[in-house]
Amino acid sequence: MSKLFIVGTGPGDLDLLTPKAKKSIEASTDLVAYGLYLDLLGELCAGKTHHDLPLGEEIGRARLALDLAASGKTVTLISSGDIGIYAMATLVFELLDNTIQNKEPIQNQQWLNIEIEVIPGISAMQAGASKVGALLGHDFCTISLSDLLTPWQTIEKRIHSAGQGDFVISFYNPVSKKRDWQLNTARDILLEYRPAKTPVLIGRQLTRKEEDITITTLDKLDAHDVDMFTLVSIGNSESRHIINGNTQWVYTPRGYSKKL
Amino acid sequence: MSKLFIVGTGPGDLDLLTPKAKKSIEASTDLVAYGLYLDLLGELCAGKTHHDLPLGEEIGRARLALDLAASGKTVTLISSGDIGIYAMATLVFELLDNTIQNKEPIQNQQWLNIEIEVIPGISAMQAGASKVGALLGHDFCTISLSDLLTPWQTIEKRIHSAGQGDFVISFYNPVSKKRDWQLNTARDILLEYRPAKTPVLIGRQLTRKEEDITITTLDKLDAHDVDMFTLVSIGNSESRHIINGNTQWVYTPRGYSKKL
Repeated sequence: MSKLFIVGTGPGDLDLLTPKAKKSIEASTDLVAYGLYLDLLGELCAGKTHHDLPLGEEIGRARLALDLAASGKTVTLISSGDIGIYAMATLVFELLDNTIQNKEPIQNQQWLNIEIEVIPGISAMQAGASKVGALLGHDFCTISLSDLLTPWQTIEKRIHSAGQGDFVISFYNPVSKKRDWQLNTARDILLEYRPAKTPVLIGRQLTRKEEDITITTLDKLDAHDVDMFTLVSIGNSESRHIINGNTQWVYTPRGYSKKL
Repeated sequence: MSKLFIVGTGPGDLDLLTPKAKKSIEASTDLVAYGLYLDLLGELCAGKTHHDLPLGEEIGRARLALDLAASGKTVTLISSGDIGIYAMATLVFELLDNTIQNKEPIQNQQWLNIEIEVIPGISAMQAGASKVGALLGHDFCTISLSDLLTPWQTIEKRIHSAGQGDFVISFYNPVSKKRDWQLNTARDILLEYRPAKTPVLIGRQLTRKEEDITITTLDKLDAHDVDMFTLVSIGNSESRHIINGNTQWVYTPRGYSKKL
């Protein structure tokens, strides 16, 4: 049978990998992923054929996964986090959509016979929010700050909308090696809508050995403190940073206070 | 040791329960949850003391979990989905915040000695998006339509903001037994911002035995087709519903089309 699993493996900690994701990898002969993600999975990937395409070759990775599955192999395409959130899943369906519309070479029609199963994973915003308490406790949104595929104008409009709606905001792809001004611009936009002292989570390498978590405030958020492996989540106007001895938490209330 | 795990057990399928969540339950003597969530976990909860408070008694449940942990027990407080997303985690931190501020009775100061660990879970929007493909493939938000704790004015403002920003939108708590008009109002607001034919996912009892998934369009969304166990996710203006033989998918493109 021709089968493609499209799988999110969570933020890094193998204890956050779902059994469903694990079983799909075990059932596969071929794994397609950025190499770092396979490294994080360790032993689980032993004995499988690894197809390790570098960052930036997302389209090649999606095509390869489809080609391998169409050739009769059982394949897992892997992203860390949730593969449905700023990751590879949507690209596979875009390729299938083009195939249905005859925009792909005729031989790729074989892709349409593949059985596909998407398996979600714990996303970085969830790993970060849970590590500091309950930052996603009320309405929230996610915005990718990468303008490689989305025009900056669209991103900027979304930041304004998120500010107006007072959503908790998680920024994915906050900076990259070649891209560093977007995060500070986003901060300045949000300062028009919410207090300077709004709590901010800077979560680097969440749940991994190198994990580093900083809780700061919106006015102090700076792109210099952030890299490609970092999630940035901004509280809404009611989010609270509380300190209990050596422990600190950030939470966003849901409105129970009237009843407590 | 006085320990409280605050745990999301995912949408229902035990294959989406993380090992970390499972281990916390295994390590506990006492489980605090709405009974249905314990039923979904089956055997895993055997031999534990169950504290099954009904829906609507969220504050009682949070207080009980804190009291049990403070008395020296190892306790897991459970919500299905992600306990940090429209669930019990934020309420625990709100109670702790009040305790730090001396707004709780003096004996509750003992809550501040509890070691707390929050463990995230797969949320309904992720279960739904993965079942139909990649609906969360680009910037998205969540909005709870329950006005029990949040004024309708705030909710309505968020729906407008989400419409303006063209976010994919997941509605949690779309209706309840006593509450049914909000979803249709939300639909009408969104029709001001995005096409009538925007794909909509209606996901009932996701990943459970009774799972029922409908893909419809924004203009046909109706509160009569939705109940308390249902997630409603609305695509953005670019989301696509595609059909391949007997299979159908919904995805939200990230912008690769220029490169394909």
